[in-house]
Amino acid sequence: MSPRVSKEHLKQRRADIMKAATQVFIEQGYEHTTMKHVMEAANVSRGGLYQYFSNKEDLFEAILEEGLSEEAEDTGFSLEEAASPQWTLLMKLMFGEDGRPDTNMDPLAPSKLEFFITGRHDERRRTYGEKRYEMGVNIYDEVIKAGQETGEFSDRYDSGLLARSIITFVDGLALDHAIQPEEKVRLKEQSELFVEYLKMALDVSSSS
Amino acid sequence: MSPRVSKEHLKQRRADIMKAATQVFIEQGYEHTTMKHVMEAANVSRGGLYQYFSNKEDLFEAILEEGLSEEAEDTGFSLEEAASPQWTLLMKLMFGEDGRPDTNMDPLAPSKLEFFITGRHDERRRTYGEKRYEMGVNIYDEVIKAGQETGEFSDRYDSGLLARSIITFVDGLALDHAIQPEEKVRLKEQSELFVEYLKMALDVSSSS
Repeated sequence: MSPRVSKEHLKQRRADIMKAATQVFIEQGYEHTTMKHVMEAANVSRGGLYQYFSNKEDLFEAILEEGLSEEAEDTGFSLEEAASPQWTLLMKLMFGEDGRPDTNMDPLAPSKLEFFITGRHDERRRTYGEKRYEMGVNIYDEVIKAGQETGEFSDRYDSGLLARSIITFVDGLALDHAIQPEEKVRLKEQSELFVEYLKMALDVSSSS
Repeated sequence: MSPRVSKEHLKQRRADIMKAATQVFIEQGYEHTTMKHVMEAANVSRGGLYQYFSNKEDLFEAILEEGLSEEAEDTGFSLEEAASPQWTLLMKLMFGEDGRPDTNMDPLAPSKLEFFITGRHDERRRTYGEKRYEMGVNIYDEVIKAGQETGEFSDRYDSGLLARSIITFVDGLALDHAIQPEEKVRLKEQSELFVEYLKMALDVSSSS
């Protein structure tokens, strides 16, 4: 077996385990999932699993990282070469490729919240959470700042603060959606209302 | 001992246990706290503790309930006899008696989030969470609706939806504040920005 084939194979095996584990986390939540559950779902031996991931935290972080790269690919643009209005980019960042609020919510969101909230006293997880928060703030901040510089957006409010309020809204909605039935939270309508808040704060015309 | 004195005494003992337990929950979080921790902190025997609370969940709910009644007292008004503008009431509901955003956050907030997020598959806790969410939505909804009816607020947006967006914001901020350092979240400034969003949505003048 050439090293190249073997590497491909290992990569595929790792991806398969992560896919099976994601389903387990979605069904059981972060706290209630064990490595044993993952072994069963991925149909892999103990040794086979630990070859790729040293513990549950390590595995979950790998899934989170993969999610981040997929999100970056999904939005499908480079900020530098962006020709379209910043408003369009902002909406794609918030709601995905079609840029419109919908009733979809990342099914892994409740486990992510659990992971960070129950691990808040753990130094390593805290640092990791901070890094992710910062990345999230920065990407929104960049787009808003770019729009303010070209005059597409009003610069009445600080771009970093507006970026944080988007994260607050997204996190709050994920939290309430994890706990409440859809019809109580009114996910899509709330997202539409938040878009209106942003339009008013950035002086974006309502026809956008 | 007369039954009256005894009742007072029991009430006081219960309050003391709840006070000590609140500190334990703040320090350890919900998941990591045990009834044994509470026994030690409250300096009460096992029998003494279980006389008042049958388990950790029961105890935490009692603390949550007490928090709700205190909040109702703190705002210090009855919606019916409200003479002041609804905007003032809304700000008091959101930020307490002085009605101004500040850097204070309920120290028990992270444990509350933990309680609801890790218990999301538990039927009883879920129902309890829904009841609380509904209460929260209703109180904001009432004030906004009253302001829309008198013409103090614009009725451009649905009051129930605006109420939900307040809860989303408050929950999201509590979540991010539980995980991130204060200077990253910019709690007070974010609250001020959210107040601006509401002013724009309700057509409240900026001098309010």
